[in-house]
Amino acid sequence: MANSKYEYVRNFEQPDPLLPNTWLVVRIDGRGFHKLSAKYGFEKPNDRRAIDLMNAAAASVMKDLPDIVIAYGVSDEYSFVFHKSCTLFERRESKLVTTVVSTFTSYYVHLWSSYFTNVPLSAPMPSFDGRAVMYPTDHNLRDYLSWRQVDCHINNLYNTTFWALILLGGMGATEAEKELMGTYSSDKNEILFSRFKINYNNEPEIYKKGSVVIRDYELVEPKKSTAAVDSPGMAEQESSDAERGISAQLSKTQQEKERKRREKARITVQHIDIIKDEFWQRRPWLLSNKPGKIPKEI
Amino acid sequence: MANSKYEYVRNFEQPDPLLPNTWLVVRIDGRGFHKLSAKYGFEKPNDRRAIDLMNAAAASVMKDLPDIVIAYGVSDEYSFVFHKSCTLFERRESKLVTTVVSTFTSYYVHLWSSYFTNVPLSAPMPSFDGRAVMYPTDHNLRDYLSWRQVDCHINNLYNTTFWALILLGGMGATEAEKELMGTYSSDKNEILFSRFKINYNNEPEIYKKGSVVIRDYELVEPKKSTAAVDSPGMAEQESSDAERGISAQLSKTQQEKERKRREKARITVQHIDIIKDEFWQRRPWLLSNKPGKIPKEI
Amino acid sequence: MANSKYEYVRNFEQPDPLLPNTWLVVRIDGRGFHKLSAKYGFEKPNDRRAIDLMNAAAASVMKDLPDIVIAYGVSDEYSFVFHKSCTLFERRESKLVTTVVSTFTSYYVHLWSSYFTNVPLSAPMPSFDGRAVMYPTDHNLRDYLSWRQVDCHINNLYNTTFWALILLGGMGATEAEKELMGTYSSDKNEILFSRFKINYNNEPEIYKKGSVVIRDYELVEPKKSTAAVDSPGMAEQESSDAERGISAQLSKTQQEKERKRREKARITVQHIDIIKDEFWQRRPWLLSNKPGKIPKEI
Amino acid sequence: MANSKYEYVRNFEQPDPLLPNTWLVVRIDGRGFHKLSAKYGFEKPNDRRAIDLMNAAAASVMKDLPDIVIAYGVSDEYSFVFHKSCTLFERRESKLVTTVVSTFTSYYVHLWSSYFTNVPLSAPMPSFDGRAVMYPTDHNLRDYLSWRQVDCHINNLYNTTFWALILLGGMGATEAEKELMGTYSSDKNEILFSRFKINYNNEPEIYKKGSVVIRDYELVEPKKSTAAVDSPGMAEQESSDAERGISAQLSKTQQEKERKRREKARITVQHIDIIKDEFWQRRPWLLSNKPGKIPKEI
Repeated sequence: MANSKYEYVRNFEQPDPLLPNTWLVVRIDGRGFHKLSAKYGFEKPNDRRAIDLMNAAAASVMKDLPDIVIAYGVSDEYSFVFHKSCTLFERRESKLVTTVVSTFTSYYVHLWSSYFTNVPLSAPMPSFDGRAVMYPTDHNLRDYLSWRQVDCHINNLYNTTFWALILLGGMGATEAEKELMGTYSSDKNEILFSRFKINYNNEPEIYKKGSVVIRDYELVEPKKSTAAVDSPGMAEQESSDAERGISAQLSKTQQEKERKRREKARITVQHIDIIKDEFWQRRPWLLSNKPGKIPKEI
Repeated sequence: MANSKYEYVRNFEQPDPLLPNTWLVVRIDGRGFHKLSAKYGFEKPNDRRAIDLMNAAAASVMKDLPDIVIAYGVSDEYSFVFHKSCTLFERRESKLVTTVVSTFTSYYVHLWSSYFTNVPLSAPMPSFDGRAVMYPTDHNLRDYLSWRQVDCHINNLYNTTFWALILLGGMGATEAEKELMGTYSSDKNEILFSRFKINYNNEPEIYKKGSVVIRDYELVEPKKSTAAVDSPGMAEQESSDAERGISAQLSKTQQEKERKRREKARITVQHIDIIKDEFWQRRPWLLSNKPGKIPKEI
Repeated sequence: MANSKYEYVRNFEQPDPLLPNTWLVVRIDGRGFHKLSAKYGFEKPNDRRAIDLMNAAAASVMKDLPDIVIAYGVSDEYSFVFHKSCTLFERRESKLVTTVVSTFTSYYVHLWSSYFTNVPLSAPMPSFDGRAVMYPTDHNLRDYLSWRQVDCHINNLYNTTFWALILLGGMGATEAEKELMGTYSSDKNEILFSRFKINYNNEPEIYKKGSVVIRDYELVEPKKSTAAVDSPGMAEQESSDAERGISAQLSKTQQEKERKRREKARITVQHIDIIKDEFWQRRPWLLSNKPGKIPKEI
Repeated sequence: MANSKYEYVRNFEQPDPLLPNTWLVVRIDGRGFHKLSAKYGFEKPNDRRAIDLMNAAAASVMKDLPDIVIAYGVSDEYSFVFHKSCTLFERRESKLVTTVVSTFTSYYVHLWSSYFTNVPLSAPMPSFDGRAVMYPTDHNLRDYLSWRQVDCHINNLYNTTFWALILLGGMGATEAEKELMGTYSSDKNEILFSRFKINYNNEPEIYKKGSVVIRDYELVEPKKSTAAVDSPGMAEQESSDAERGISAQLSKTQQEKERKRREKARITVQHIDIIKDEFWQRRPWLLSNKPGKIPKEI
């Protein structure tokens, strides 16, 4: 029995390749996490278990998908960055987005009980939506990540102050909201310090900076003369191929070597500044996609 | 601290609305399920636990997303159909696809242990990819679903015979593959019957027909004179609005009524023919999107 | 000398197929025609030469592109409709849109001097932009064309009254605009009649109805019982293929016959109602894409 | 008479913005120019009138659309390049492509009689199709243009030899084709020289290099140390904005100044190498989009 009579329906599937030589960011967001955080009693303003779970899921995604170069997470959102030379799934948008979203969700649910012990999940289950965005230049990509990290700071300062007013100051939510309306960062710092003896600078980095997930190679001493967005140390041909956005024609042996170095690399979660040049200068592998040196075990 | 300096990166997000007045099918597929089925020892040719788990996850997706009209699953794939008048997420493709994929994955992992008792999941975790396809007419949509159900039949007949040759006939995989090369359905039926006394017609419907998930209303007596793809019983204005693909301007009261009828409807999983007209004629709510009559509890 | 080093740039070209089984409308619009009409002294409210030129260009486009089923024009815009089963250029959006726009522009400039004698064109030259829109059902397509024809009526009634106030009533543009602000159709009819003895109903059909360009076959007596949007008289298999949106598997002989009937058909420009069912019922070839009967020469 | 009943059809129009911060190339191609060149008796292998007409039309397009930075043409194709920071028509693909195609066609037809005197145009009229392609980096853009210029060379060498074999060598087309099958550039050079005393290097540059259309500013002395793809001489903030792909926040006065410098710039057509760095280094305005210095009239 052939299937030819109905097979024409495949023609309705439309191609969705993302533009070559652009950075691909897949950002996922928790669906209805306001409600979900209430249901499972997340602590305010930040629930360490919830953040640790997000980070564990993100690290697992990076392990399963070695094409991801860096991930950045805050609250119930996570951004996964594929290198501009990435050709995974022939850069088909649906494939890339759904694979990231599904893998993340899978680990999130699987790992839930390790972080929320004795808090069983029940329907409706947590879920995430996602989208892909293309960024043509290293500069644009860095600005995207800076945007997320600045947002993290703005939101965390607000939330820290908001919940201090409520939990420590005894205000209601509406009253606290009103109190903060129109305030600047300095005002919020002042409220925290003068009323609650909280120095915002001493708040945990994980909440102030969000979480950065990368493969861990030996840090590089930044060269004075080299701009951050360049790919220092590349041979000229490689550099040229990289600028074209096509995978360098590496020999099988070289490819195998790179694969192994990626697999061997430890995936780490850090809470550091990714806005300044230093982060990128010391980790040239992020923009170049050439795996760095595996640090010696101690 | 304002975020204006980096916020321009939002302009790189591109709109992705799906065309109005088209049926939306989100089809998800297990990633690397060949390997996964080996890892967890799925029975061959069909593992009832695996299929039941897929169906349970699909039913949960339909419960969480009332905009889904019908779902059809076979093996490690599932198709979810949104009505052509659906406006969920303003029909944004990424939102629709990722929400379905993530919700499905979430339930799949959550419910795993109910179906695979004492078979704990471990990394790499199961995941699914997905894509959306638009179908302009009822006819195209039905042909899509027919395509999947015919495919189910073709694959199941092949797999049943293939594994009979191996498990009952003692052949190796290569030998069995060679044996089946170029055979017709009738040949496979003959092999099953003459060599293994298996009458394919008596195989379980769940494997032969796949699984159909719908909201369960009272079946309707098909009208002799009405074509299946019409929407019988609609008032003229409603019918006209339906043909335009715009949501009829229902009164708040009517909308509330419909919502309740949808919520009250039991979600059922059946293993029946969806190719023939009868299935659609008896369930006019599938194509019309007007909830049917809730059957009386017995 | 091979070109392989640079040829990778072809990979940046992205596919743009339009969805199968949808009506394709390419609408073109004059760029900056307000300024252009001043430059060449178009008569107000309507310049017959300008409209005749638009119509002549549109008819030529239909002659060159037999895949176009119907075109409708008003003022400096024209809509060209490709049948939902059309496979020209594999339905690539850019190809379809640019071909229509370019062919139209070419004839517009070429034929200019036949309609504007002694009014030579000069830089900046007239040009048109265009876009494609998909409509899934016959109903949607008819609504699109109805939308344009209603717009034609609304604009023409407004312009006729506006220019009567100016040319016959001696008003300035601002004054006339103010006078018409907030008026209904009936008010404008009244102004025309009471102040200027103009009965709007007696205005030329070409301005009130716009211009419809079709291939001219023998009109069909509408069947009482058949809905306009069906395809009466089709054999069942053909009808089924038509509903799928795939080209019926016509024999070579049949295809050749159809081609000839299309080529033989005279292209006519008419100024008639295309909103009511009658227009479509009497010209079933428009929706079915089966060429009608060539009228006998008299 | 309101138009609300049908106006819903506008919802079927889909957004089509091109990605910010990418170079936009609109390439147009003559439709059926093989046939057209026979109809109007184009000379072989190159017809100077036809090329001059293409170039004149392209120069007019650049005059009408100041957002175009450079255009490159060969045979019946032309590529128009919009700067990566261009925001014309909000970067809507259809608008950009159709405007270029239509404007080009308009001038092509209008100027025809200036180049083909006593060769009147007749239906079917010349027309062009077009498409837009995005290139993320300066490097990719330059590779695109290099690709076209290398193609020009390859085709022209082939055609020159092919037609020499026919027109001077008395061969038939099939025979000439066979003669050239599998030959390298050096073989064709040899054929031209040994059989027909033609030194390919002495062929006109317009055929060997194609045509480059740019605004003519004072050439810049290339700096030894600066890579071609950078934007030398920019102040740091400007450079940073340029890398972001957003229009620098120029003051009104500055904008006005730039507009005037663009308008004052003469548009020139040249037949020179655009593959080597020199072309770009001496004309930094092409990649930076900062208008250069208007040369003094002599």
